[in-house]
Formats: sequence, structure tokens, C-alpha cells
Amino acid sequence: MTKEYITTWFQGLQDEICQSLEEKDGKGKFHQDLWERAEGGGGRTRIMTDGKVIEKGGVNFSAVHGEMPEKILNALQLPKANFYATGVSIVLHPQSPMIPIIHMNIRYFEMSNGIHWFGGGIDLTPHYVQEDDAVFFHQYLKDVCDRFHPNYYPKFKQWADDYFYIKHRKETRGIGGIFFDRLSSDEGFTKEERFGFVQAVGKAFIPIYFHMVDHNRDKEYGKNEKKWQYLRRGRYVEFNLVYDKGTKFGLDTDGRIESILMSLPPQVEWHYNVQSAPDSLEKKTLNLLKKGIDWAGSNGEL
Amino acid sequence: MTKEYITTWFQGLQDEICQSLEEKDGKGKFHQDLWERAEGGGGRTRIMTDGKVIEKGGVNFSAVHGEMPEKILNALQLPKANFYATGVSIVLHPQSPMIPIIHMNIRYFEMSNGIHWFGGGIDLTPHYVQEDDAVFFHQYLKDVCDRFHPNYYPKFKQWADDYFYIKHRKETRGIGGIFFDRLSSDEGFTKEERFGFVQAVGKAFIPIYFHMVDHNRDKEYGKNEKKWQYLRRGRYVEFNLVYDKGTKFGLDTDGRIESILMSLPPQVEWHYNVQSAPDSLEKKTLNLLKKGIDWAGSNGEL
Repeated sequence: MTKEYITTWFQGLQDEICQSLEEKDGKGKFHQDLWERAEGGGGRTRIMTDGKVIEKGGVNFSAVHGEMPEKILNALQLPKANFYATGVSIVLHPQSPMIPIIHMNIRYFEMSNGIHWFGGGIDLTPHYVQEDDAVFFHQYLKDVCDRFHPNYYPKFKQWADDYFYIKHRKETRGIGGIFFDRLSSDEGFTKEERFGFVQAVGKAFIPIYFHMVDHNRDKEYGKNEKKWQYLRRGRYVEFNLVYDKGTKFGLDTDGRIESILMSLPPQVEWHYNVQSAPDSLEKKTLNLLKKGIDWAGSNGEL
Repeated sequence: MTKEYITTWFQGLQDEICQSLEEKDGKGKFHQDLWERAEGGGGRTRIMTDGKVIEKGGVNFSAVHGEMPEKILNALQLPKANFYATGVSIVLHPQSPMIPIIHMNIRYFEMSNGIHWFGGGIDLTPHYVQEDDAVFFHQYLKDVCDRFHPNYYPKFKQWADDYFYIKHRKETRGIGGIFFDRLSSDEGFTKEERFGFVQAVGKAFIPIYFHMVDHNRDKEYGKNEKKWQYLRRGRYVEFNLVYDKGTKFGLDTDGRIESILMSLPPQVEWHYNVQSAPDSLEKKTLNLLKKGIDWAGSNGEL
């Protein structure tokens, strides 16, 4: 299982996902920018703008290498080493507030000293939380995880709850999903088996997102729902700029800014002290943006 | 010079500035929220929304006290102490992209061990940099500083250049201004004299902002200028959420979120890899968003 093999598979996944999304969207096309990193490696940034379904979306591949930054070596208490990092990273902001924002990332990291690991996850940020979609989403992820290890879903689901948390708002970013990092030889799996899991997560993206699109694209909405969408996107920005480790890492290491910040929504609003009416769908959503909801266990019965 | 005296003066300044801004705006009124902090103290958050000139603006006063957070004591290598902090903080986002965003903050901090200092500054973020406004702005600040010490303007101007810098964009947030912190017994000034300087900075806010409004409020603009304004506001968000120490301090110490994040603009846009035409006013602005421009020395001749 060489890094070249993993890299090529990631590129293939990017191609596949872009093609599927273009077909599903029916109007938007991905624009590709190839970029190179002075210190080694580069990427393929692909952005769709003003599609029928997707207002702004990025499906990015990168494979970078070079010397490990001092800052990170110190944090991890490691001696000098070279690194190689490759991954696929997706954020899609839909036109319709009835369709959730989705994020997926899978990544592989190795160092010249032999240390290597996988990381990744999928999480969903509905502007309006709908129980049936949330149950479908978590059940799908649980099924993927359960094919590999019974501990994976509960562990990675909680990891996502903890990671995608906007501390200063006391809100989760969305309904979570799964998140994992530094997946190495725990649970006795071989590297091939672990990569098998990462591949399964990557392959889950399209069926999950298509379900969300098909289930919600014909739902009507008006000015109020758009307004709410802009506000929820504000929370997305707050999370990504204040807490997201991938974004921070990119900004700290002088990464390609336009590729990193493609995750930011096209239109956003911040208003002072917005309050939602007690019985509104907005309030219902806020009440469901918390850690520890057992969506997959509940089968819709919360 | 007691903390009570300083606090009362800050409250008076807030009143005065709010009244002046309401008169100048002619339509918008400040809405006040009084808030209390569980650990001690509180504030008066005043927000104007949808004025004629000001689209969203906050003029906040706070005075909080309690035990110094461990995190900060450790960072400053100090033993346990109580603190008292009071200040006025302003951010105004205008309707018109031809009027700059303005920020002003003055603050006083003291600890039970006798350590105390002042901090503050004013900086300007024009959506379109105009040389005559920039010269007026810096000359005005230089005149205020020069009344106290010939070193103040050059020192605090450079401090603002360094502080209001969006590292990942390699851009300054705007055209800078002055920024100072931990103003204690340097230069041999008494506490009264140092407070005199802080008062002069506070008093400079209205004449400076009125000049910017009067000089620009009748300038015409269209869709393109509004679009540019939304993009520039995106940079303002990036600075405040990624770099601003006041915001970080507030989020870390569980401050009142709606008061802290009042600085975020009402409407914002992020688009992928926006490029400005070589001879455009947008490009000219980007070329002027850098450190070390000697606006006050140049008298308009750059």
C-alpha cells in the first residue's frame, strides 16, 4: 500500500464525485485550478458556482510534501522529518435552505520515519434539522462503520460531536456525523484494512448527498428561509475561522488561501441578537444542535 | 485618578458618541441592552441597525471585574490577582461602500497588585481607499498624538500597521491608524497625563467619522460597488475571527457573544478567487492595503 496508490485513488474519487455532482446539478460545471506548492507538491482545486442545486461548492484534491514545519514537530514532540500528505476535501453550499450543507474529508499522512495515519469524516449542517434526514444520515454512516468495527461508529460519532462544536455559541455546527484522525494500527487492522474503511467513507459521500438533494430539492421556501440560511451560514464561518483545525493548519503553513477558504459560504449575514419564536422551525433546529443525540439508535423516535 | 472616575468618563463618552451619531444619521436610533456578567460587572451594548448612513453599528461600554483567568495569568506569568477592566468599543458598518468602516476602542485595565494600564486606538477600513481621506485621517491622529509626545504617532501608527494585518491575505485590514496597549509609566507621564491622551483619542472619534461621512455620503455607487463592499467585509470578518485579540479574549473568557460579535458586518460575501482588473479602483485599493505607507508625512503626495 504505497502513498502513490492512495494518492491515485484519491484523485479518482475526486473525478468520480465531480462528475456525479455535475450530473445531479444539471447546470453547474466544475472549474479546475491546478496549483503548485513552492516547497513541494500541489493540488487540483475544483469549484462549482451558481449551479441549479449547488450555489458554491468545492471538491479539492491535494498532495503535498516537504519538511515538517518546526511548529508542528514541536507540538508533536518529534525530531526533524519529511512528510507527505494527501487528501480530498469537499464543502457544498446549496442554493436551497431546505438542502443541508455537507462536508467530507479523507486524508492520508506519512512521515519519513515511518509513522503514518489516515483521517477523515463526513458531517452534515442542515439549515433546518429534519429528523428523517438526520436518522438516514447517521444510519448510513453507522452501516459503513459497522462493516469494519463495532466501535467505529460510536467513537467517531462522538468525535464529530466534540469536534464540530461552536463553543462560544454553545451549539454544534450541524447534526455531526463521523470524524476520525490518526487512524493507525489500533484494533489490529492492517494498513490495507484501514484504507478500506477510508475508501468506504469516500464512497458514502455521493449516495448520502444525493439522498439529501432528492428528498429536499422540491421543497418550497421564501424570504424567511433564505434569511435563516444566511444566518446559519454565519455560524459555519464562525466555526471554520475560529475552530477548524484544517483551516488553521492551512493558514499557519501558508497554504493556498483560495483553496482553503473555498469552504466559506457565498452570501452570509450577521444580525444583532436574533431570537427565534418558541414554536418556530428555527427554534426547533436550535434545540437539535447539541451533542449526544443518538440519531442512529432512535430510528426517528427521539 | 480612580477607576470609578475613568469608568464614568467612558460612560459619558458612550452617551455623547451615540447622541452625535443619531443626529448625523438622521434616521437610525440606538437600541440598548444592559447585561450583567455572572463573575462581576456588566455593560451597555448599544446597536444601531438600518440607519440612513449606518447599516449596522455598535457603540459598547463595559466594566467587568473578578478573578484573573488562569490562562491569562499563566501567559503573563503573574500570581493570582483580581482585575478590573473598562472600555468603550465601536464598530460602524455604513450603508454606502463609499464611506469607510471605522473602529475605535479605548480601555483601562487594573489589577489588585497595583499594575494598571491604558490601551486603545482608531483605525479605518475604506472599501475604496481614497488618498485625501487617508491623509486627513492620519494627519488628524498625528496631531492628537503630537500634543502628548512626538514618539506616539510613529510608534502607534506602526503598531496599528502590524496589528491590523491579515497575514494569510498579505493585506492590511484597512489603512491602519493608531493602536496602543499597556500604556503605563513610559515616557515619564503621570496616570492623569496618560488618561488625557486616551480621552483625546476618544474625543477624536466623532470629528474624524463625521468628516468621512460628510465627504462621501453623496457619492454615487451601484451594484459593482456594493459587491465589492460585501467582499471587503469578508476580509473584515477574517481579521476579526482569526486574528483580533479582543475578540479571541472575549470568546475564550465566555464573554457576552452578541456584544463581542456586533463587529461582524450585516451582509458579507465570499467568492472563489476574485481578481480585479489592473486599472480598476478595486486594484488600486488592494495596492494601498499594505504596511508602512506614510500618509501623514506625504500630504497626499505618495
